[in-house]
Amino acid sequence: MQSAQNQFTVKTPGRGVTDLTSRVQALVAESGIRTGMCHVFLHHTSASLMLCENADPQVLKDLETFMEQLVPDGSRMFQHDAEGPDDMPAHVRSVLTGAALNLPVAQGRCSLGTWQGIYLWEHRYSPHNRRVTVTVQGD
Amino acid sequence: MQSAQNQFTVKTPGRGVTDLTSRVQALVAESGIRTGMCHVFLHHTSASLMLCENADPQVLKDLETFMEQLVPDGSRMFQHDAEGPDDMPAHVRSVLTGAALNLPVAQGRCSLGTWQGIYLWEHRYSPHNRRVTVTVQGD
Amino acid sequence: MQSAQNQFTVKTPGRGVTDLTSRVQALVAESGIRTGMCHVFLHHTSASLMLCENADPQVLKDLETFMEQLVPDGSRMFQHDAEGPDDMPAHVRSVLTGAALNLPVAQGRCSLGTWQGIYLWEHRYSPHNRRVTVTVQGD
Repeated sequence: MQSAQNQFTVKTPGRGVTDLTSRVQALVAESGIRTGMCHVFLHHTSASLMLCENADPQVLKDLETFMEQLVPDGSRMFQHDAEGPDDMPAHVRSVLTGAALNLPVAQGRCSLGTWQGIYLWEHRYSPHNRRVTVTVQGD
Repeated sequence: MQSAQNQFTVKTPGRGVTDLTSRVQALVAESGIRTGMCHVFLHHTSASLMLCENADPQVLKDLETFMEQLVPDGSRMFQHDAEGPDDMPAHVRSVLTGAALNLPVAQGRCSLGTWQGIYLWEHRYSPHNRRVTVTVQGD
Repeated sequence: MQSAQNQFTVKTPGRGVTDLTSRVQALVAESGIRTGMCHVFLHHTSASLMLCENADPQVLKDLETFMEQLVPDGSRMFQHDAEGPDDMPAHVRSVLTGAALNLPVAQGRCSLGTWQGIYLWEHRYSPHNRRVTVTVQGD
């Protein structure tokens, strides 16, 4: 077994999603590993990584609507608001959806389902530079 | 270190859970790997994999009740409903609970806690064929 | 590639969080692995592992407040209450937040972001002994 590890930075547009699928697939291809695992990690606590439906952009909008109702910005239940009304909600969203994805590699690619895309979900209002590490292990 | 990767398909009964524990344990045993990691991956965005209490079936029923309140089917907040009132809720549930599990392998088995079972959670009303990949890496 | 696997037990104080960051980092250092993956696994269904902001303790308090509103203890929607009003909510919290973390290892350490801490989140009211397995794989 062998491994490859790379980092890159994503400049997010503020709250919303960025599709990382092709960047991750390119790193898997570059690693030369045909069968194994690919791990994608986000070094932050106010954004997330997720797999989501990649065909109808409305899915991502509805997901945002859901999350804004579930974790209301500026809610009085939150006392940690040093960075604004989106500060604590961003941490809650990050805990609920996670900062890592682990994906099987088969035939030299992340073996995603037809409708699975890899997304970075920015939870803060303002644009941020987000650091991502991709580790591939296998044969 | 060595690895083994296998796929299988689960025919779900529609919304509800299917216990995958023994199928996953069988693949780990078959791999001959004694110590390492086992990764279980679902290639879909409207069903999930989860670890859940495996003793009292009421736990899984209460979990379903909770999720149906948290993400109401047919909610007017969702515009993506091409496949019915359970379409967008299924995607939200999938994001909240995840499509992958990573489990330690020790003494040739997934080292689960006494009450941990591996479940596929179908979020759509109708039966589906769900594709699962199991990757084992270790010694 | 090589691997190391260790177990330890955490005595929790009842509902609340325990910082595991330094214990996990110590096991990674001890493994001698410089580049690869570190997997942390909790063998229970009524507590979680999570990455969370580690600077302001109020973040963890607000997270607890949020979760207590999201999954109300003693809710009449839950029938599984053999062990008390916190029994079923603990299982729901565990499903929503997860029992495992997978972290990249770089330069001999878990490569966490500046504000990322590794926490065990006890969801039961009373203190428990919680078993954790750490598996490191890499070069």
